[in-house]
Order: sequence, then structure tokens, then C-alpha cells
Amino acid sequence: MLTTSLDAARTVAVREVPEPVVERPTDAVVRVTATCICGSDLHPYRGAGVALPMLMGHEFLGVVTDAGSAVRTVSPGDLVVPHFAVVDGTCDSCRRDVPGSCARLSFYGQPDAEGVPTVGAQSQVVRVPLADGTLLRVGDRPGDVTDADLLALSDVMATGHHAAVTSGVGPGSTVVVVGDGAVGLSAVLAARRLGAERGRDGVAAVRELLGRDGADAVCECVGSQDAVDTAVAVTRPGGAVGFVGAPQAVLPFRRLFMRNVRAGGGVAPVRAYLPDLLDAVLTGGLRPGRVFDRELPLTDAAEGYRAMDAREAVKVLLRP
Amino acid sequence: MLTTSLDAARTVAVREVPEPVVERPTDAVVRVTATCICGSDLHPYRGAGVALPMLMGHEFLGVVTDAGSAVRTVSPGDLVVPHFAVVDGTCDSCRRDVPGSCARLSFYGQPDAEGVPTVGAQSQVVRVPLADGTLLRVGDRPGDVTDADLLALSDVMATGHHAAVTSGVGPGSTVVVVGDGAVGLSAVLAARRLGAERGRDGVAAVRELLGRDGADAVCECVGSQDAVDTAVAVTRPGGAVGFVGAPQAVLPFRRLFMRNVRAGGGVAPVRAYLPDLLDAVLTGGLRPGRVFDRELPLTDAAEGYRAMDAREAVKVLLRP
Repeated sequence: MLTTSLDAARTVAVREVPEPVVERPTDAVVRVTATCICGSDLHPYRGAGVALPMLMGHEFLGVVTDAGSAVRTVSPGDLVVPHFAVVDGTCDSCRRDVPGSCARLSFYGQPDAEGVPTVGAQSQVVRVPLADGTLLRVGDRPGDVTDADLLALSDVMATGHHAAVTSGVGPGSTVVVVGDGAVGLSAVLAARRLGAERGRDGVAAVRELLGRDGADAVCECVGSQDAVDTAVAVTRPGGAVGFVGAPQAVLPFRRLFMRNVRAGGGVAPVRAYLPDLLDAVLTGGLRPGRVFDRELPLTDAAEGYRAMDAREAVKVLLRP
Repeated sequence: MLTTSLDAARTVAVREVPEPVVERPTDAVVRVTATCICGSDLHPYRGAGVALPMLMGHEFLGVVTDAGSAVRTVSPGDLVVPHFAVVDGTCDSCRRDVPGSCARLSFYGQPDAEGVPTVGAQSQVVRVPLADGTLLRVGDRPGDVTDADLLALSDVMATGHHAAVTSGVGPGSTVVVVGDGAVGLSAVLAARRLGAERGRDGVAAVRELLGRDGADAVCECVGSQDAVDTAVAVTRPGGAVGFVGAPQAVLPFRRLFMRNVRAGGGVAPVRAYLPDLLDAVLTGGLRPGRVFDRELPLTDAAEGYRAMDAREAVKVLLRP
């Protein structure tokens, strides 16, 4: 089966490797029907200091083909969406809806918590350790729900949602989203769903706040110093910023403090949000697949990376 | 009447000045019955770069002796507690319970929003601009409620309360308070009142969390780099820190982000908390006057500063 490897900076290869199988009773094996490239994949692509070669990808949608004897919640034939990393679902952090701090956290493409290697999600088949903690069964799927809509839940849509939740968006909130990449667009979808002002009221609110003291809620979806400073500057006193851009910046502590601006966010607790967001996609009209603006076969993964690196594409879906 | 001035670093003088009178229709004049020295007063005392001489004090308890024609909520003879700065109570920020960002904010000892000078609160008499926004009438007072209990509401107790509120303390929360000064002690009182675990359960919880991943809520009541780093380090993933120590530090953004630790707090919205906290003092058994461990006549203010600077006293009450 095919898997994607970053062999050197800006050098992506898709090559044949042995097909993963169930190695532990808690494993599932999933045939990937759709995967994609994350903005965070561009950091190693551009030469950030990571060990290479690196097996790529952490977002996917797929069908279970085999499951270990201890797996309870998914079975062969089930369509599943994952958390973007492997989590057990049972530790203190998972039970408190902070799966990013799971006691047995591991990442696709790296050894699992027991030291057994995994491939990345930009593959035809993946082994998912701790399947009950990591995967959610999709169930019945209306005809107008696309693979892209479901795939987006495994990271990008849930991350935008996290920005909206942790910046306190509620009915009538004025919201500013900093960043118009795939996460920023997802944050717009999430903020609208959580009740942010929109349409004429939204425009009036934005006009008003430009002359006033800022927005109730600000979603920071970039992580650069400029974006972080902008986000804090456009938040009203007593408002909140939800930070979901991987931080390459210093927080302006004194400015937050003097204006009582709260700072929330972090690594999105995707698995905790999945049931609600999946329901919103299946029955609520949420269509996060719109953040993908290009689709390529997995064998053209290198072109997908090139297009995102060159900002010709916002987010690229790959078909194994 | 007597007022307190910082003439040079470590040089405090109490001297005679003309007694303040009503200058504007929204003013009240208050005869001070108790005032005190704040930890933040030690920064200029130790030579922080501020303009000198500086008129000192922003916490007081007193009786209204005169009020302008536009003042509606307090009258001569009323015992009153103030917000630690002058606020209008009507602007967007005040209505959203962020009086620290009031559109007409000014500080005791400095010119008010209209440019008219004021004395500091370490005085026998103070003029309070915008009295309706700034002062709260105490009303009936049980015999066991001390001046110290009421005086503490004007800043220190409300600031400890802010740490507990913004770190999300609720029934059953495990709480760590960083800092054992007057604000830290107030945060302990506030956290207990908001339902934090205590007694044997509290000890067991602390023991357990030392071997686990941290506390639900952490009150940071110092502001130094060590204290900020400690506060973040002892917060569990998904927990929250309420920062109320004036920040002389950098926030560890990446560590907050990776563990989904929220950062709240800031300048305490004292006026917004006053009604609830006053009720807790008058009827609920809250006794924040316990944070004062020395009482001196106002004429000995210099000795009070010396004792707090030398850490011989936690917080000094001054009697005009």
C-alpha cells in the first residue's frame, strides 16, 4: 500500500510499504477514503528542525477493515472519523475533555505509546492504536454529506470550533477571526453556528466596534506575532481570545492584564467535540468540507504540498 | 487636613493641605475612617520610575460629608466603600463589569477625568469624583463587622476574589494559591467561599494532585516570573490560572497552549464585585479584615511603609 514521506525539506515521496495489520487487541485497521494536508504539515515541509524522513498526515476518513479483540465501539465495515492523534479516552485528561494531554498520547507516523510504529494518515491504510479512544463511528450518512465534510472534523473544523468556544462566542457576540486559512474559515463557520451576529447586524456591529473598543470574542487562527498582537488589540476590555494557531509568538501579558482580556484555546480537543460536530454535519447543515479548495490523488501528494506552500491552495484533499 | 506624600524613594511624609470640597455636581467628599497601604504602593516606594512627589493611597472606608447636586446614590452621613479608582459606572466597560477600562477612569492622588486634582486616599478627607459610579453605600452594619472587613473590600479582598473567579473556582475545585501576601490570603478566603475543597478533603486533594497533573484552578497573586511559571506548572491540563499579581513577567504561551490552560484575571473589577462581597461581609461571615496584621495612626504612615517594605507586616491599616 502507498504512504507519504517527507524525505527532505520540500521533498515529498509517495511509496509502497507493507500494509498495516492489527498488532494489539485495542487496534483497528482503517482503509482511508480521504485524507488531507494540514497547515502544520508545512512547517517540516519548509525545513523546521524535525527528524527526517517523516511519515506524514494526521487527518483522515475511512472504513474499518479489521479490529482487535478488545475493540468495542467500531467494527469492520464502519465509516469512522478520528482524533488527529491517538488517545485512550479513559485517562484523567481524556475524561476531562483534554485529549491533547492524554496519558497515552501518540501521533500517526510515529511509534504508539507501546513503541509499535505507525504510518501517517496520508496513506491507503492506517493502523489506529487505542481505537475506542481515538475513532468515532459515523453511522447513517445523508446523501448530501460529502467525504470532505466528514474529513474536516478530524482536525480543521474542530480547531476552528475550539477557537470559537474558548473565545466565548455565544448568541449575539461580536466576533473577529484573525486568519483566513482553513482554520480561520472553520472558525467563521463555528462562530456563526454558536450564534455570532451576522448579515446586516454583523456588518453594523463590525462598523460600530471599529469606532469603539473591540469585539467580544476573537479567534486567533495563525500563531504569528502579528496575528497574536492584532487579536489582543481588537478584543474589547473583558472579552476573550481563543488561540488555536500554533504559537510562534509572545503573549502581550500586560495588555491582556490591564484590559481583563482572557486567553483560552490551545491544541483542539477534537475527540471531545466530535460527537456534537458530527451531529451538526449529519443533521444540522454544517458543511465544513467547503474549506477544501483542491482535490488530488494521493500519488500527487507532492503537488498538493507545493500548492499549499505557494498559497495556490488553502487546503488540499488527497484521495488514496 | 493631613495627607500622605511619597517625596522620594523610601521617603514618606504626612503633611497638612487644604481640605477638599465638592468641585463638580457629581463629586462627594468623604471623611476617611480607615485607609491602608497596598503592596502596589511599594513599587514607587522602592524607586520605580514614577513622577515624585506622589500622593499616596487608593483604599479607604469613610463617611460622606458633602455631595454635589447630581449625586443620587450616596448622601451625607452614609458610610461608603469605593472602587480603588474613580469610575463612572455608565460607560460600556463599566456596564460590562470591566470598570478598570472605564472611559473616565482616574486615580486618587492624580487629576480626575476633567483635570481637577485629587488627594490620595491616605488622607483624612478625600474628594471622590463620579461618586455614583465609584462609591457603594454600606447600609446597616452588624456590630461584629469591623472597619478592616469593609476597608478590605475596596481592593485587596476583591482582587483575591477576582483571582478565584477568573481561575474558575467552583464547588469541589482543587485550588492552588501562589503568593501568601494580602492578596493571596484574600484569594484563599474567596476560593473557600466559592466552594473549593478544604480541610481533610483539601489536604487529600493536594497530596493527590502533587502526584498527578495539577490543580483545577490556580490563583497567581504575585506577578513575578517565578510565580507565573509556578502557577502555570501546577495547573492541570484544561485548568485555568487567574492572574492578579501586577505582571512583571512573560507568559509561557506555548506551555499554556499545549495543555489548554486558560489565562484570566487582570486588574480587579472591584466595583462590579462590591455588592456581592459587601453582602458576604454583612451577612455571610466573610471576614477579610483578617489580612491586616498591623494598625497605625495616619501620622505614622512612614513606619507602615517601612514595615511592609521590610516584610515585618503583611498589610498595614492607617487611622486618620
